[in-house]
Amino acid sequence: MAQANLKATLHKVIFGTEPGAGRNFDIFLIIIILSSVAALFIDSIATVHQRYGDYLFAAEVLFTVLFTLEYIARIYCSPNRRAYIFSFYGLVDLLATIPTYLSIFIPGAQHLLVIRIFRVLRVFRVFKLFHYMSEANVLVRSLVSSRRKISVFLVSVLTLIVVFGALMYLIEGPQNGFTSLPRSMYWAIVTVTTVGYGDITPRTPLGQFIAAMAMITSYAIIAIPTGILSAELIQESQRSINNRQCDSCKKLGHEKESKYCRHCGEKLLPPQ
Amino acid sequence: MAQANLKATLHKVIFGTEPGAGRNFDIFLIIIILSSVAALFIDSIATVHQRYGDYLFAAEVLFTVLFTLEYIARIYCSPNRRAYIFSFYGLVDLLATIPTYLSIFIPGAQHLLVIRIFRVLRVFRVFKLFHYMSEANVLVRSLVSSRRKISVFLVSVLTLIVVFGALMYLIEGPQNGFTSLPRSMYWAIVTVTTVGYGDITPRTPLGQFIAAMAMITSYAIIAIPTGILSAELIQESQRSINNRQCDSCKKLGHEKESKYCRHCGEKLLPPQ
Amino acid sequence: MAQANLKATLHKVIFGTEPGAGRNFDIFLIIIILSSVAALFIDSIATVHQRYGDYLFAAEVLFTVLFTLEYIARIYCSPNRRAYIFSFYGLVDLLATIPTYLSIFIPGAQHLLVIRIFRVLRVFRVFKLFHYMSEANVLVRSLVSSRRKISVFLVSVLTLIVVFGALMYLIEGPQNGFTSLPRSMYWAIVTVTTVGYGDITPRTPLGQFIAAMAMITSYAIIAIPTGILSAELIQESQRSINNRQCDSCKKLGHEKESKYCRHCGEKLLPPQ
Amino acid sequence: MAQANLKATLHKVIFGTEPGAGRNFDIFLIIIILSSVAALFIDSIATVHQRYGDYLFAAEVLFTVLFTLEYIARIYCSPNRRAYIFSFYGLVDLLATIPTYLSIFIPGAQHLLVIRIFRVLRVFRVFKLFHYMSEANVLVRSLVSSRRKISVFLVSVLTLIVVFGALMYLIEGPQNGFTSLPRSMYWAIVTVTTVGYGDITPRTPLGQFIAAMAMITSYAIIAIPTGILSAELIQESQRSINNRQCDSCKKLGHEKESKYCRHCGEKLLPPQ
Repeated sequence: MAQANLKATLHKVIFGTEPGAGRNFDIFLIIIILSSVAALFIDSIATVHQRYGDYLFAAEVLFTVLFTLEYIARIYCSPNRRAYIFSFYGLVDLLATIPTYLSIFIPGAQHLLVIRIFRVLRVFRVFKLFHYMSEANVLVRSLVSSRRKISVFLVSVLTLIVVFGALMYLIEGPQNGFTSLPRSMYWAIVTVTTVGYGDITPRTPLGQFIAAMAMITSYAIIAIPTGILSAELIQESQRSINNRQCDSCKKLGHEKESKYCRHCGEKLLPPQ
Repeated sequence: MAQANLKATLHKVIFGTEPGAGRNFDIFLIIIILSSVAALFIDSIATVHQRYGDYLFAAEVLFTVLFTLEYIARIYCSPNRRAYIFSFYGLVDLLATIPTYLSIFIPGAQHLLVIRIFRVLRVFRVFKLFHYMSEANVLVRSLVSSRRKISVFLVSVLTLIVVFGALMYLIEGPQNGFTSLPRSMYWAIVTVTTVGYGDITPRTPLGQFIAAMAMITSYAIIAIPTGILSAELIQESQRSINNRQCDSCKKLGHEKESKYCRHCGEKLLPPQ
Repeated sequence: MAQANLKATLHKVIFGTEPGAGRNFDIFLIIIILSSVAALFIDSIATVHQRYGDYLFAAEVLFTVLFTLEYIARIYCSPNRRAYIFSFYGLVDLLATIPTYLSIFIPGAQHLLVIRIFRVLRVFRVFKLFHYMSEANVLVRSLVSSRRKISVFLVSVLTLIVVFGALMYLIEGPQNGFTSLPRSMYWAIVTVTTVGYGDITPRTPLGQFIAAMAMITSYAIIAIPTGILSAELIQESQRSINNRQCDSCKKLGHEKESKYCRHCGEKLLPPQ
Repeated sequence: MAQANLKATLHKVIFGTEPGAGRNFDIFLIIIILSSVAALFIDSIATVHQRYGDYLFAAEVLFTVLFTLEYIARIYCSPNRRAYIFSFYGLVDLLATIPTYLSIFIPGAQHLLVIRIFRVLRVFRVFKLFHYMSEANVLVRSLVSSRRKISVFLVSVLTLIVVFGALMYLIEGPQNGFTSLPRSMYWAIVTVTTVGYGDITPRTPLGQFIAAMAMITSYAIIAIPTGILSAELIQESQRSINNRQCDSCKKLGHEKESKYCRHCGEKLLPPQ
């Protein structure tokens, strides 16, 4: 009985997002997470590591112990333990502690702790940022419904990369930095995406001509994904206007900003 | 009485934009502002500073005295002094003089005078470029009404940057220029935004492969903000057409370019 | 008779895509193609070539013999041999074998074998990815119907490149890396497309000013192809909605996602 | 009389574009123009200049004499000489010859001959590529009608450049390559336009942080001109559909591709 009570209270505090103990716990947790990621970042700077490495290591051990205890508590008070352990949050919670233990055996493994940053995604749950989730859904839906066009685009880009990469390997050759086909492909990707590091550049006139062709082609091609997504997003927002219905007169077609039906003047439900 | 008169005249000259003294003062002011910024720019060139540094310093002192006097005069003749001092223009006017005084104590502070460039924004008020303001408002409104989508996009980009930055830190390591996690993040930002300086580049084959993945992902992702904004701007211009009403027949739906109602032929009011 | 039988069976296995022998043959073929391309890629790495070059050469000879036999079999069992030989697939099949034979006389020619990657396009036929083909058609149709706008854009970009390239050649000159007009054009293309290798950069203040002008112009100009394609794709998707007709009530205007007519409730045919 | 005849014949040959002498002259002219530009290009390569410089100089003199004679002939046979001399083509024709004469006094001036490339624009007139002109007009009209939005955008970008340039000058300073305010502005433009040469890069951690902010801001801002132009082009094409009228039933709203009225079946006039 007492144990059931403890479990229920713990569950409310740890999993709950209501104002009071539940929210305070979550805010405290987010501060801890951000501190642990910050510690990780500054510890990776050589000069900081030399001077404060011991303190930061101690902090890291402390954070890991805290997160491990929290993880055990979460499992303990879950009504459905299996569901929690294999949920996205459950896996991230686990992966946020393992690297410290791993680093005892494999030096350097603690850098994987960067995965802790994903724990911050809880912020969406805590502050009820569901509006943002619905906007994210619109973007994802647009990407999904244009997945075929995007695949066709990516296949075209890959073909371009393979063709230009192979051409440059033949023309420039190892003496100009194009030491292998994979490296030529790397050059082609750096060029076609307009990143242009300049670590590998064509040096023969013919190579520069071919590279210039690749750039102009990619210049025209970068328009394609933007055009695809613009068209999809416009369609999507048009659709949401067309499908919004007035509850009293049942007429369709209301803008997202509208608050009253433009046919009968009744109040509209907020858009989904 | 005489003082009240002086105040009113000064106010008309300094704050007014009517043709005559008011406008002439403003045009003169803008010329002075541009000269002072130009002086600042050329003084920052080492060879110019060596030869003409003294003259340019004298000019700077002169400009600062002029701006200080103008600032005092503005406060003096303002009907509501508090409102002026804490307005955007009031703060810029103050900040445009302080750095020179500061540079007596802190050498180099005079470079902050670049803030003077913002004083040029008065040009909008002087030449009544309100059309431009309304277009700027359309852009700002589009950005505001798509703020959630843009936030979702920025969070995705930041996640990408953190993930790819951490991965490259582990793979390439300090010996290839990825000396710390923050520096790896800097590399990731330079790459994902397609700036691509080439000051830090992957050197291991695996690092180049991961970098190529990051580039192709960012290539697809750059389409998202453009798509969002295109959709928003199209909606915005559609809405302004739908809501433009004829004053005589009350029918809606007139294009921005239309001058007469296409239903009853009456003259339309200009679009807002 | 036996020969006709053999021919028909071979045709069914080699050209067929039905489940069973036809599909298995195609899947096996795609695996072989990908293996041969992978061998080519890793053989181009110097250290791999030194150690495993002989094995990889043997593999390449084997792949070439297999592809040659397959090519002969395809010609043998084609009902219309001429049509096959001069089709896209026929030419790619031939070009996928020639470079190995060429490399006996011309060292290095075997790198042209990269053309084999195009044989993978059969994957579209095998897995009936026709949906993708129709999406590709939409993209191609959009590009074709905006070909004039894109030509106008490309001519403007080329003019920009010629003007800025020639200007920089005059201003910077050979001592700053702009050694010839073609090389200056190469610089202009690298800059205007925002690739920005940094292998040739302006060093004089005037050159940097002109380069900055070129960048800002190209920044505004990159918007043009995207705008063209977005407008075209939106039109295209609007058109496909407007032209979709219900078979029972004959009313037009059904969205791609709709499955039932929104006027009479009858089932709609899938969109073309 | 004979002179009037000569003038008329010359005018027909030189200015005419009809099949026969008029068109042949123009095609011959375009070949000459392209040859003279090609000569200019290859002459700028040092090794070519050393070996064939004399021949190419002779060719250039010949081209210049031809173009000068042509220019005189054009003036001679023009009905309205003033109009021709001050037209776009007249000025380009003159500027295409002057640099050679100038180069007698100012060595290097002959590189300005690159301006000859503009003479090729006659190709539009010769091959009646007026369709292209009308598409170019659509693009220009879209740019013009969104000129205010684009100005607002450019002012924002310039503000960003000034602010980030000045900040980096203060933070990085001359010891890290930011030797003057104009040079810092150059860096800011190279960064904000995502060109990213890498000739000047931030080296202090704070400078890299500020640079990263500049990149992410510019990443979001690049969406603005594209969005503006997409919206404008869509409006433009919508307008041309809405305004196309059937000549028999007078109903509006016909797509560019339509050949027959969708209301009465009569043939439509081609779209303007």
